[in-house]
Amino acid sequence: MLRIRGSTQSTRPDTVAAEEPLEIRLSGTPLAVTMRTPGHDFDLVHGFLLTEGVIDGGDDVLGLRYCDSVDADGRNTYNVVDVDLAPGVEPPDTALDRNFYTSSSCGVCGKASIDAIRTRTRHDVASDGTRLELATLLALPDRLRAAQQVFDKTGGLHAAGLFTAEGELVALREDVGRHNAVDKVVGDAVREGRLPLAGHVLLVSGRASFELTQKAAMAGIPVLAAVSAPSSLAVELAADVGITLVGFLRGEGCNVYSRPERLVLPE
Amino acid sequence: MLRIRGSTQSTRPDTVAAEEPLEIRLSGTPLAVTMRTPGHDFDLVHGFLLTEGVIDGGDDVLGLRYCDSVDADGRNTYNVVDVDLAPGVEPPDTALDRNFYTSSSCGVCGKASIDAIRTRTRHDVASDGTRLELATLLALPDRLRAAQQVFDKTGGLHAAGLFTAEGELVALREDVGRHNAVDKVVGDAVREGRLPLAGHVLLVSGRASFELTQKAAMAGIPVLAAVSAPSSLAVELAADVGITLVGFLRGEGCNVYSRPERLVLPE
Repeated sequence: MLRIRGSTQSTRPDTVAAEEPLEIRLSGTPLAVTMRTPGHDFDLVHGFLLTEGVIDGGDDVLGLRYCDSVDADGRNTYNVVDVDLAPGVEPPDTALDRNFYTSSSCGVCGKASIDAIRTRTRHDVASDGTRLELATLLALPDRLRAAQQVFDKTGGLHAAGLFTAEGELVALREDVGRHNAVDKVVGDAVREGRLPLAGHVLLVSGRASFELTQKAAMAGIPVLAAVSAPSSLAVELAADVGITLVGFLRGEGCNVYSRPERLVLPE
Repeated sequence: MLRIRGSTQSTRPDTVAAEEPLEIRLSGTPLAVTMRTPGHDFDLVHGFLLTEGVIDGGDDVLGLRYCDSVDADGRNTYNVVDVDLAPGVEPPDTALDRNFYTSSSCGVCGKASIDAIRTRTRHDVASDGTRLELATLLALPDRLRAAQQVFDKTGGLHAAGLFTAEGELVALREDVGRHNAVDKVVGDAVREGRLPLAGHVLLVSGRASFELTQKAAMAGIPVLAAVSAPSSLAVELAADVGITLVGFLRGEGCNVYSRPERLVLPE
């Protein structure tokens, strides 16, 4: 790597965030490929299947394993995971994304996407009575960064952290894909039978998109906080399913886009 | 939106980045759904089809139009685009992602993903003799930000800018999805018959992933610059196909991960 800083140039080795494809198969049939940072792959698979509505919990997975997928040198790539679903759990019959977003009768639109999530969510996030002190919320980004170690080296990883309403870090995962970081956090909870994640806060290092809000809803998480901006559909989905959506959480401030009553503000 | 800054709280309207699903169909058959910011949709479709290897240029598209996809109130959502490919252009026979990443014989791995791109790229990026002054490169982020208008309002959009080697802005597109911003920039060029984009620089506002590097390769762009970090597979792909990959382009510095000889450094 050629490093240029002002008039100084140097050539040096550099650490970059690892990225490799992961193919998820159901009983041998390819379901999806995602570009991810290797590690916590079984968490990722559980989280992906849960947040996409394929499974309702860890019991819906009979077993999973790395396939014997080998590279040109005959080494296992550890980039293919095959999942056996429990009896009675139906595999989706088409590509997941398409299926999820267009399953409503009203055509392809944001409203239909939201309806599809609401139909599939098993958890009643809206009536989750969690209360969160503002000071606790504002302290979360620093706690997340303190817990991140890889980030300091590569600057290339998105982070997702699951916290209790008291601000205690439950799980932290990093990935080149922010949806994967969230799937890994959720999947960890799925495998330990801790869903729904009532009373928890999910913090993501970047923006809040529709997709990340969907994942919070599917996992039953009542508060989603993002360091950066939300999208229009993220705000609409959060309002619709009753998630407290926080954006621009940095320094001494934040923006609350839905369900602000879960925040305990100072007098 | 409840705005909290230190001890100040206010409730006010807020502008957030628009996000809506777009379904791309080939002669009526659904191909893919992407969450995007509405606008420049036909550019997005052309860029997506080109960078995913479905078409080689604008002539491969006979026509495209918004379908009569209506919402619950009977209004066209303008969220479905149907494409007629020219005679002889074969539609892909399965989900694009899966097809692209696993078409090599060596299993699912980074190497196979890179081989798949190299096989499909029609443009010889490696022998592109573009030379770029360091000062020109360092000035690009400011030029991109100056040209961004929506960003200032919402903070929620990724940007992709196409520049000449002299630093002139050719096209700027913004989107909630950074891959969509790049597809819109590339699709604009596809529709105007300007591919391959030899002698050009693509600047992206975030990180450089495998996917974005793939898109640059498919469009024949010799220099890819990112404001933030690259991933391992982005570096490997860039080195393999001969793209100059620049990361952490900010202030007075940058890191050059591959093909640094295209940069003209001061004495």
